[in-house]
Formats: sequence, C-alpha cells, structure tokens
Amino acid sequence: MSTHNSELRVGMIGYAFMGAAHSQAWRTVNRVYDLPLHARMTAVCGRDEANVAAAAAKLGWQEHTTDWRSLVTRDDIDLIDVCTPGDSHAEIAIAALAAGKHVLCEKPLANTIDEARQMAAAAVRAEAAGVRSMCGFNYRRVPAVSLMRQLIADGRVGDIRHIRAVYLQDWITDPQFPLVWRLQKDKAGSGALGDIGAHIIDLTQFVTGQRITGVTALTETFVKERPLPQASSGLSAAAGDGNGPAATGLVTVDDAALFLARLDGGAIATYEATRFATGRKNGLRVEINGSKGSVAFDFERMNELEFFDATGPSTEQGFTTILVTEGDHPYLSAWWPPGHGIGYEHSFTHQARDLLEAIATGGPLNPSFTDALQVQLVLDAVSRSADHGSAWTDVEPILAEVAA
Amino acid sequence: MSTHNSELRVGMIGYAFMGAAHSQAWRTVNRVYDLPLHARMTAVCGRDEANVAAAAAKLGWQEHTTDWRSLVTRDDIDLIDVCTPGDSHAEIAIAALAAGKHVLCEKPLANTIDEARQMAAAAVRAEAAGVRSMCGFNYRRVPAVSLMRQLIADGRVGDIRHIRAVYLQDWITDPQFPLVWRLQKDKAGSGALGDIGAHIIDLTQFVTGQRITGVTALTETFVKERPLPQASSGLSAAAGDGNGPAATGLVTVDDAALFLARLDGGAIATYEATRFATGRKNGLRVEINGSKGSVAFDFERMNELEFFDATGPSTEQGFTTILVTEGDHPYLSAWWPPGHGIGYEHSFTHQARDLLEAIATGGPLNPSFTDALQVQLVLDAVSRSADHGSAWTDVEPILAEVAA
Amino acid sequence: MSTHNSELRVGMIGYAFMGAAHSQAWRTVNRVYDLPLHARMTAVCGRDEANVAAAAAKLGWQEHTTDWRSLVTRDDIDLIDVCTPGDSHAEIAIAALAAGKHVLCEKPLANTIDEARQMAAAAVRAEAAGVRSMCGFNYRRVPAVSLMRQLIADGRVGDIRHIRAVYLQDWITDPQFPLVWRLQKDKAGSGALGDIGAHIIDLTQFVTGQRITGVTALTETFVKERPLPQASSGLSAAAGDGNGPAATGLVTVDDAALFLARLDGGAIATYEATRFATGRKNGLRVEINGSKGSVAFDFERMNELEFFDATGPSTEQGFTTILVTEGDHPYLSAWWPPGHGIGYEHSFTHQARDLLEAIATGGPLNPSFTDALQVQLVLDAVSRSADHGSAWTDVEPILAEVAA
Amino acid sequence: MSTHNSELRVGMIGYAFMGAAHSQAWRTVNRVYDLPLHARMTAVCGRDEANVAAAAAKLGWQEHTTDWRSLVTRDDIDLIDVCTPGDSHAEIAIAALAAGKHVLCEKPLANTIDEARQMAAAAVRAEAAGVRSMCGFNYRRVPAVSLMRQLIADGRVGDIRHIRAVYLQDWITDPQFPLVWRLQKDKAGSGALGDIGAHIIDLTQFVTGQRITGVTALTETFVKERPLPQASSGLSAAAGDGNGPAATGLVTVDDAALFLARLDGGAIATYEATRFATGRKNGLRVEINGSKGSVAFDFERMNELEFFDATGPSTEQGFTTILVTEGDHPYLSAWWPPGHGIGYEHSFTHQARDLLEAIATGGPLNPSFTDALQVQLVLDAVSRSADHGSAWTDVEPILAEVAA
Repeated sequence: MSTHNSELRVGMIGYAFMGAAHSQAWRTVNRVYDLPLHARMTAVCGRDEANVAAAAAKLGWQEHTTDWRSLVTRDDIDLIDVCTPGDSHAEIAIAALAAGKHVLCEKPLANTIDEARQMAAAAVRAEAAGVRSMCGFNYRRVPAVSLMRQLIADGRVGDIRHIRAVYLQDWITDPQFPLVWRLQKDKAGSGALGDIGAHIIDLTQFVTGQRITGVTALTETFVKERPLPQASSGLSAAAGDGNGPAATGLVTVDDAALFLARLDGGAIATYEATRFATGRKNGLRVEINGSKGSVAFDFERMNELEFFDATGPSTEQGFTTILVTEGDHPYLSAWWPPGHGIGYEHSFTHQARDLLEAIATGGPLNPSFTDALQVQLVLDAVSRSADHGSAWTDVEPILAEVAA
Repeated sequence: MSTHNSELRVGMIGYAFMGAAHSQAWRTVNRVYDLPLHARMTAVCGRDEANVAAAAAKLGWQEHTTDWRSLVTRDDIDLIDVCTPGDSHAEIAIAALAAGKHVLCEKPLANTIDEARQMAAAAVRAEAAGVRSMCGFNYRRVPAVSLMRQLIADGRVGDIRHIRAVYLQDWITDPQFPLVWRLQKDKAGSGALGDIGAHIIDLTQFVTGQRITGVTALTETFVKERPLPQASSGLSAAAGDGNGPAATGLVTVDDAALFLARLDGGAIATYEATRFATGRKNGLRVEINGSKGSVAFDFERMNELEFFDATGPSTEQGFTTILVTEGDHPYLSAWWPPGHGIGYEHSFTHQARDLLEAIATGGPLNPSFTDALQVQLVLDAVSRSADHGSAWTDVEPILAEVAA
Repeated sequence: MSTHNSELRVGMIGYAFMGAAHSQAWRTVNRVYDLPLHARMTAVCGRDEANVAAAAAKLGWQEHTTDWRSLVTRDDIDLIDVCTPGDSHAEIAIAALAAGKHVLCEKPLANTIDEARQMAAAAVRAEAAGVRSMCGFNYRRVPAVSLMRQLIADGRVGDIRHIRAVYLQDWITDPQFPLVWRLQKDKAGSGALGDIGAHIIDLTQFVTGQRITGVTALTETFVKERPLPQASSGLSAAAGDGNGPAATGLVTVDDAALFLARLDGGAIATYEATRFATGRKNGLRVEINGSKGSVAFDFERMNELEFFDATGPSTEQGFTTILVTEGDHPYLSAWWPPGHGIGYEHSFTHQARDLLEAIATGGPLNPSFTDALQVQLVLDAVSRSADHGSAWTDVEPILAEVAA
Repeated sequence: MSTHNSELRVGMIGYAFMGAAHSQAWRTVNRVYDLPLHARMTAVCGRDEANVAAAAAKLGWQEHTTDWRSLVTRDDIDLIDVCTPGDSHAEIAIAALAAGKHVLCEKPLANTIDEARQMAAAAVRAEAAGVRSMCGFNYRRVPAVSLMRQLIADGRVGDIRHIRAVYLQDWITDPQFPLVWRLQKDKAGSGALGDIGAHIIDLTQFVTGQRITGVTALTETFVKERPLPQASSGLSAAAGDGNGPAATGLVTVDDAALFLARLDGGAIATYEATRFATGRKNGLRVEINGSKGSVAFDFERMNELEFFDATGPSTEQGFTTILVTEGDHPYLSAWWPPGHGIGYEHSFTHQARDLLEAIATGGPLNPSFTDALQVQLVLDAVSRSADHGSAWTDVEPILAEVAA
C-alpha cells in the first residue's frame, strides 16, 4: 500500500459523535506533531445526502458521498476510517482491506464474534501486503493511561494481584430517555457491556499485559421499555413529538454488566459497566494493585495518574497524584506547558499520530483487529455467563489464523 | 435484666485491638453524651494473668480475671462485651445470655453458621426476658454512614440500582508477614471475607434496607505459606526470631474475596474484600446509585459523605462533599464544633451510646444477633460459591426461630 | 469595518506558545461552533523568515511574512492577532486599529501604563468606527469560570466578602534555568506579576463584577542571576552551550508578587503570583466567599467548579464538585458528551468564538482594551506598593477618554 | 516542683469548649501512652457553682470549685490547666507559677503584649525552679503537622520560599448570630486574628523554624452590630428571647484579618484568618514551597499530609497524599492500625502526652510562654499595621529577660 506524496488520504464513514471526534483528530494531528505522513481529509460518507454535505462543510472534509462501497475503492483514498454503528463494521472494513486500504475501525470491532473473527482474519491477510489496521480504543492514548502502562512494564507495580475497573455513566437513568440505536441489540450488539465495558476490558489488559481467561457475570436492564425516538444520533435524542403519548419499544440490551475475572498472569478482577450510575458522567476508573505498588486512574480527571510506590520509606508512602502534563510524559512533548491539561479529543489525535507513524514506518501498531477480537471474546464470555446464571465461563481462544 | 443504680457494669473479654477500642468507648461515652445509664468498667478478662492485669491497669478496668466462665455469671456484671477471636464468640455469648447478661459481641458473629444460628436463637430467647444483645458492626455508627442511611431512607437516592462496595487493606502484602491468627481458618473462620467483607455486607444492607439474596464469588490466597509468628496479637506481629530461617505454615484463609450480588429490592452489587490492595490502608468504600441520586463514602475520609442530588438544576449538579461534623448530623451534637473531625474510635463510642440507651429505655437496637446471622449467611453463600467454581448461590434464609 | 463574504481573514503576529494556542483556536472554532463568520488563517508574521515559514506550514497559515507593518494594512486582512511579547503590543495594535483592522491582543495589554492608555484610547476611537478590539484573557472562557461568574451574577453567592486568588507555577525554581525574555523587565514588563498575576486580577474582577481599589504588596526575586540562554522561546529554554560556565545576567523582574486588596463592592482579597511554588504547575486557583455561598476553581482541574450553597438544609451542605461538561454549561453545547472533559486550548477556541460572534453581530465584547488597561493599573499599583515598602496604594482611575 | 507518686494532679480552670477537649485528653492520655507520669483529674474550677459541679461530674473531675485563687495554691495540685478566655490568662497563670504549679495555658497566651511579657517572664523564672509551662497550640500535635515539621527539618523541602496559610471558618456569617464573648475586644483581645490567626502564625513558624519579622495587614468587620446573647458559651449561642427585637451591641473585634509577611529565613508569606469563609468549617490550611519540595496540610483532612518531592524522576513527581496513620508516624504508635484515622481531640491528648513526659523527664518542651509571646508580638504587629493603613510594621523583638 503506497501513500501519495507523504500524504495519507482519509475517507471517513459516519460523522456523528465518533466522526466528529475523529475529524478533530485528523485536522489537528499534523499541526501538533512532526510526522513523516500528513493526513488529508479527502471525503466523508453518510447515508443522508444533505446531512453528510453539511457535516463535510462543518468538519472540514473536502468531499462527501453517500456511497461507502465506491469510497473504499477510490484511488485517491489511502485509509478508511470506520465510525459507523457496530453492525456495519465488518462489511465496510473487510471491503476496505480487500481494496488495499488501511483501516481504522471504531470499537467494538463488531457486533458478533463471527464478524470479528472475519475482520481479524482479513486484517492478518492484509498486513502481509503492508495494509495496516487498527481498532479505535482511544483511551489507550490518554497520556495518564500510557504512563500507567509504562510504570507497570517497568516493574514499578510488581506482580499484579488486583484489577478494579468500572465505567460509570448515567445518561439513560431517565425512563423517558428514548430508545436510541445504542439501546437496540441489532444495531449495537449489546448495551453498556459492548459500548463501555469493552473499553475497560481493553484498557486493563493493555496496561497490565495480562489477558482475561474466564469470567462470571450478571447483567441487568433496569428500564425495559422506552419511548421510540423520532430521530436520534449518538448519545442524545428527543423522545416523542409532543402530541400524545409516544409509542414505546423494548430495550433489547443491558443497562449494566458486572463481572469477576481471572487473568492469565494471576490477577483477579472486578469489572462494572453501567449507564445507571447517577452522577457519574464518564467515570472510567481503573485501579491496579501489585506487590510493589499501585496505580489508579479516573477519566473524569484524565490529566492525573495516582501512583503508590510501596518501596520507599513507610512514613512517606502515599498515592502520588502525578499531573500528567510534563513534556516528557507520553504524547505531551507537542502540547502545552506543564499544568495546562488536555481533553477527551486529544486521545483521538494521539491515536491518529500513532497510526500515521506506524503506516509511515511500517512499525508495530496497536490495538490490532486481533487484539480487538480478543476483547470481543471476553465480551462474549461475559454475555454467555450472564445468560447461564452467572456460571463460570472461559474466554474462547483466538484461532490460529488470526493470532498475532 | 436489671441495672444497678443507673449503672451498667461491664465485663469485657479480650483486650487486644478490639478490646482497646471498646475500652476507649466505655471510658468516654458518658463523658460526652448525657445518658440514662452510666457504664462502669468493672472487669476485663484474658488468658494470661500478667498480660490481662497490665491491660486492666492501662485501659482503666477496675478488675481483671482469667476466668471468663465465672465472669459471665457474676452478680456485679450487667453486660458482657465479647472482644475475642470468632471461634470463642458462641460459647461465651450464649453463656452470658443464659446468665441474664446483656451481650455486645464483636463481628463476625461466629465462625460457623451453626454457631451463629445458636447465638441468634439464644438472643431471641433472652430478648423476651429483657436481656439485650448487639453485634459490633461499628461502622454503622460512623456519622457519615448514618447520614447515608438517612438520606436513602428519606428517598433522596430513589430506587437503588447499584451498590459498589470494597474494603481494601494491604497489611499482608509482604510474604514475610507472619501467620497470625487472622490467617488461620480454625481461629478466624475466614480471611478478608469474614474480617472485612462482613463489614461491607452489613453496611450496604444497613444503609439500603435491602438484603442480598444470591451471589457469585471467587476467592484467592496469593501467599500460601508464611513464617510462623513467635507471638502475635491483632494486626501486627514480628516474624521469626532472627536465628536462621523461620518455620512456616500454610495460610488457610482467603487473602481476597470478590463477589457479585443481587439484593431483594432490585439492586445489583459488586463487593471486594482484600488484604492485598497495596496502598489502601482501611479503604472501606461504598457507593450507591439510585434513580434520584447517589451517595458515596470512603472510610479513609470518614468525616465526609458525598451526595449527588439528581433532582436539582442540571448545571449545578455534582457530588457534594458533606463535611459530616455539624451539630445536627448524627451523633455529633455532643462532640466538637463543625470541621473538627472525629476518628475511628468514635464509632465505638457511638455504639456504646446506642447500646446504653437501648438498654435503659428498652427501645429498638441494631444490629441484632439475627442481623449478624444474616451477614454470616451471606458470607457462607460467598464461600460456597467460591468453592463451587463461582456458581450462583442463593443466600440461605433465616430460620423462623431467629427471625426478628 | 467590513468582512469579506462572511469570512474574517486573520493575520497573526508571533507564533510561539501563544501563537500555537491561537492557531489551534482559529483552526477549530468554525469546526465546532455554528457562527455567522468564518475565520480564515490568512497570514502569520515573525522576525525570522525560515522560522516563520516553518510555523506557517506547521500551524496551518496560508502565507507568512516578516513585515508586520505591511501585514496590518493589507486589504485582505480583517483582524490582527497580536501574540508577541508585551513590549511590542502597543505599536502593533495601535497601527492595526488605525488601519481599520479588528485586534485581538494577548495579555498583558502592554508593558507600561502609558502604552496601555494609548491602546485603550485607540480602541475607543476605533470602536466608534465599528472596529473591534479584545484583550486575550483566555481564562475568562474556561467554562467553569463562566459558570462561576454566572452563579455570582445570579446572586447565588450573595454579598461577596472574600476573594482568595493564587497563580502558582514552578518552572524557574532551578537556579540554572536560563534568563529567558520573560525574566527581563525590558521585554516582559514584570515577572510573575504581569504574566500570571494579571490573569488572577482579571479573572477575579470579571467573575465578581468588583474592581480593586487599593493594594498593599510585596515582591521578591529569589534567584537574582541566571545563565544567559543561547536561544529561548516561550516557557522553555536550554542554558549554556556545554562548553565551560555559561555567562550570566541579572534577573530584572519579580519571581513572586503577593498583595492584599480591597474591592469597590466591599470584598477584601489576597493575591499571590509566583513561579517558585514547587509542585504547582499551572495552579490558578480562585475562591470567593459570599453571604449565601462560595465558589472555588483550580485550573489544574479545569473541568470542575466547586460550589457551596449555604441556603439549603444544614445537614446536606457542602462543596459540590460540578463537572462542568454538560451541554447546558457555558460553551459546551458544541463539544463532547458529559464527563468528556476539555483542555487548556479550548479557552482560546471559546475566545475566538465570542470574538467572531461579536464582530459579526456588533454585540458587546469583553474584555475591552479599557478593561485590560484597568488590570494594568492594578499591576502598576502593586508594583508601586512593593517599591514603597508595601505602603497602601490606590489604583489609579481610568481616564475619561478611555472609560467604557 | 515535685509530683506525687508518679501522679500529676491537675486542676483545670474553665470547662467550656477547651475545657471539654482538655478533659478528654487528661482522661485518655495514660490509657493510650505508656508514660512515667500519670495524670489525675483532681479538680475543675468555674464561676457558677451548679454549672461547674455538673461539668465535673460529666467530664470526670474528682472535685469542683469556684475559687481559682485557692485552687492554684492547693497542695494536692501539681499543674494548673488554664482554659478560660484570654483576659484572665495572665492573672491565673502568673499566680499558679508563683505557687510552684506547672501551667498549661490555652492560646492566645494573653490579650495584651504587656500581659504576655509578664507571663513569659514569670515562666522563665519558674523554669529555673523546675516549674514547667506550655502554651496550648494544639495543632502542633496533629501527626501530619509533626510530620510536616520533620520533613522540613530533614531538608526534604529545601530552602523555603513560600508560606501560604489560611484559617477559614464561617460560624458568624449569619448577621443574627449573637454577640458572644469571642466578638468582644475586652474579653477576646481580638477576633479571628487572635483566635485562629494565632494558630497559623504559630504553626507555620513551628514547622519552618523561621520567625516572622514584619507584616503588612488589613482587617475587616463585615457585620458591625449583632444581637446581644441571653447566654453564650464557646462557639454557639442563641440570640434574643423570641419576644420582640433583640437588643444589639457593637462587634469590637475583626471578622477577618489578612496579612503578608517576611520571615527571618528568607521566606515570604500570605496569611488569612476569617470567620466569614462560607462553607469552610475549620479550614486551617498551610502550604510551604521550598527549593526541593513542598508540603501542604488541610485540617479538614487532618489525617493526610501532601508532600511533593522535586528530586525524583520528573515523570513521577506529584503531590503524595500521605495517610498519616502508620505506626511510625508521630504520636501514632499507640493508636489504631493504618488507615484508622484520628480526630481533633487527639491533638490535645498528644499535647498532654508531651507535657507529661517533659515534666517527668525535665526534657525540652514546646511551645514555651516565650514562644507564645512571640506569636503575640506578631499579632500585635498585624493589628498595628491594620490600624495604620497597612503600613509595613516590624515585629517587636522579644526582650532579653524572656528570651529562651
């Protein structure tokens, strides 16, 4: 796969919440980082002509289209950025890879294990031809998370005993919040589990280097029926039309998923993903306890990492709140002076940076589709456990053809 | 059961960590609160004559003895305060109740369900004769916890969806920490589960008014063999004798216990009790999310309660850190001005206060032995689930003869 | 002053720290907000041809130039954005206003009162002709600060009694940190006082609506001599050249400035600006106490505002940590879902948004050059007090010709 | 001065807020610490016979009296504990010292410099005869404060540049709060300044080892007239009698005092003491920045100390929240396991411990009356500066006859 004059010409499919975040990243990445490859925002694709035209103008894409099939084969496109709901990921990504386009695909990789396996296999085949693929677990690129991983890799936490991960939101606690696509199994695959649970599964495995081997789980849908939306996009939507009671539909996904896990390095873990944690807005929190120390992170204070070093004098030990804004912290050399924090969208800019660099240099890249498939396999084990009375459920192995 | 001239003459058995805390409570309670009954520290009992004599002098008990059996029948004793390890609770408490003495018994109520049932039955019988009993779940009497319960009872949190409870300690992360009694199943019954897991089970059920109906659990013993202690008491101990390698023994209890639960009011919950959470010293944390709000508590900041009220203007919502030191906060009218926090031991003073008042007035009292039995039944379900591959396990019902 | 086809063609002078932040704002503002006017990044100007050419390419400016005098009169420029050190602000801004260009000028407005007065007078004259000007006190546009102002304006804090403001940094605590331009009085005007003290003066006056009338002050230069830099830009610089001891020069500005103040609405205040607060990176903190409540802000947690409402039930009062990320919080409708925080640079994007809107609509705009002059007058009073043994020093009045 | 059979027989004068706190300390100190001297609570003294009798019974004093003059000369009293308002300190303490009694005197030492000088001189004379005296700046004995001092003494903070101290309360923000003795100059000497400002002056000088040499100050009385109390004691009081408007009186002390200071070791400082900081209940906060690190303390989280070590790797630096509850932390060997925090009253128990030990051993003791006089001299300089338009005011030297 070649790139054009040091440009990487991007075609993005989908332009809602994730599309806006990715657009900000593509616009910004080369303005901040010095990279061998420059992203060009060539075209954006969506189903509605008028809406996608408006999005292109607003978000800064040169062209727009409603035909993703032609987009993924265009000669002037080097990378396809998949920002659609999970039910279309497989078809689009596989077609793009087949056409020799690099692919960045939002998480979760797919709505089913079968699709995810096919995507991973396609990615492995494409990789042999120099065509790269990455799944968009953006939280890996929060500097504090990168630092967490580095401290663990450097042995500062020692042998890991405990993982404690929650992803707490509260945007659907109101029973009148409408039945948006994220609450429909056919579109979203699952509810809190796949949407936000996937992030904490990926993040904890990423930073510890351990993989979940088995789980026991329970899930719950607190509000089982909701008003149908007139229209919805992303995380917000207005219900009803103001004329009489709105029609309702069944919520077919989980509102919350809880599970315990064992990991292959000996750690034990608790996980919780919920959209009913009143007052917690984007409470992705991870704490890891090891034999030599601990690290803790809360996305609502994303510029901070807490680190406990158990090897110093006992009278001086405590959790150190590291303000992860120094020039020698991950990703931060290019941003602002110490103490001048960054925001949510920067994780996408960092993701774009790493992807551009990996494509330019042919160097390693993460998370691969296989990594993302493994997260799907964990999600699947969680679902199966929940469906079988919380029975202990082993995570299925990755098949040989898609192993890294 | 009578009391003598408005005095409640206390005989305490055991004088280590819990004995010291209870002594501080008995010494202080009437100096702070105006109560109809005055505690007299009549006698303390222990196995070693010299040690118990020293403890009596140090802690302020009028007499000491090594014979608990005679203590529980003495005419000049009105209440027996049981501060021994769990394996002796049943025998002592049942004998004391039989002798017509009020009983305050440390938690966990007993090491086995059988013993706990017998104790609860004995307490129910005694209650009919005006002999009172209470189990020492002291954290119920932390003012912030009382306030948490009150806010929930007042409907400020609404329908409860989530309970998130951990009790995190780290005092045995060092593999050279010796095999103290708390690490031996025959003395302690279980490890982190019964010692600290019991507290979060009790506390969450207490504040929510819901009871756990079933669990799925896993437990782990990270360090399976430890040096034998030369001598140990309570939470600290020195290992070995400095002359060659210390003899070792097997750790027969859990270092950590994790479980998911469903409660009878519809809430779902995650629980974790561990002695391997490096950096967390007495991290009893509980968060409860409901349809109208949330509350969160962390014992390491025991004078604070976090309360999220979801019913106000959206732009002003957030977790309010209530400094629970106002005169109209629970238990605080008798202490210091606002902002002048209290400490761990005050929970025992408050417990003594409530117990003295209940004995004096004949009014209601909590937690009863039956309440404590119910906690044991949850602990038992957790153990059974962990022993059976995390299978979902229902909590056994309380039998009719001990139901409140 | 016209704009061209709904475009505002921007010429920016200076491209270091502030230039990079402003560039990010100009690139982003119309991608996020729907505005009647679209910013075009027409040209950037700097002294060194090669460097400014590189900056133009990197930051996304269409052209570059080394001649600011011609830039400010070009027909295809509508607004001049002044991002140079303070010693050149007056000359550039006055020339630009004279040429009928709108001006956005970084703070502090100027290095001397005389210059600031001339700038304010020029701005008042230009305003009559529809030419707008704004001083870049970007922290006004942090959503939590806007919310703080709004709560105060709505009477939620009541009569203001106390202002407590600090701006704490630590980037020059190392005595080997070189003598960059920010440490030289002829370039920077003053040290911590004008650089960061100006921000807390402006911010506290902005949110309270009160103005400082008099001060007593002391300043200190802890490290009086530093190595000369070989080259420096912005906040970082490498000292010496590795060959023998570096030549040194005198630090001619304050490292720290402390002052007490009275405000025209009856409040009293403490202010501190320092570059020697080890461990505090960008610790702009403001707390305001009133008769009905309090508000507190710390830029190191810029997505949070603490609000104490003293009018509710006493048992529920406390500081509420408002996560200022809701769609109905200031500036946030266009960003991410709740809990997905923003960063430092967003304050500049918000500033650009407000400026574009004010220019398009002719509506009110803040802070004006006169507002910025008033901050200079406070800085001047602080300097004079410090120079005269901390004598109480009244803030000079704004002269009639520049009064708003 | 002898003690009786290893007992120190205490006579306490005053039994309101401070008297209750001291009583708790005397009751507890020998129950927790192993000390060569045992406190006996011999007699308490107050003006009202019935009230003091009740107080004696409640607080645990063996006897009561209304005659302090006879108390201070009784043979069976070894130490006089002065817990009255400041206007009577001098007379009582000097008489007690003259009678050969050790003296513990609450702060501030006296209401006037003259009295304080006489007390210090009397203490120096008594010391020569082995009669000891201590002023009750209890916050010195908060373990986190002791640790702060130790870290500074060990050079961990380096050369101290900044001190930032506030003592924020809000108990009189309500204009209807009555005119209690603490608001009357003849009783209290001054308002927030002497009551709580004295604490932060003492504490910061104590932990840094530097002394304030000069100040510039301003004070304010926000509410100048208040209802007369029918009766008042300590910090709370009910105003009026419910029958028509209450009679009012003038507030003759400061509600708030602000000052800047220079210290003899080169540090510069800001201080603020106020009773109008809405929402801050007992917000004694101190931060100290040095060349190698920083320390910060907030009494509302009294079991924590924040420590920034600037000498480690830059990527791992941050403020470490030390939970000051370890057995090897100051004063804590005798209390509870790690993480089981202590409360306000413990500072008094620690004070009693240090005093008993110093008396028993003849060892050094702090703060002496001379130390407390020096605090009075700072308070006096603050008052004089505030009275003279914030003019810079040097702190008067301690005269030779009372120098340590």
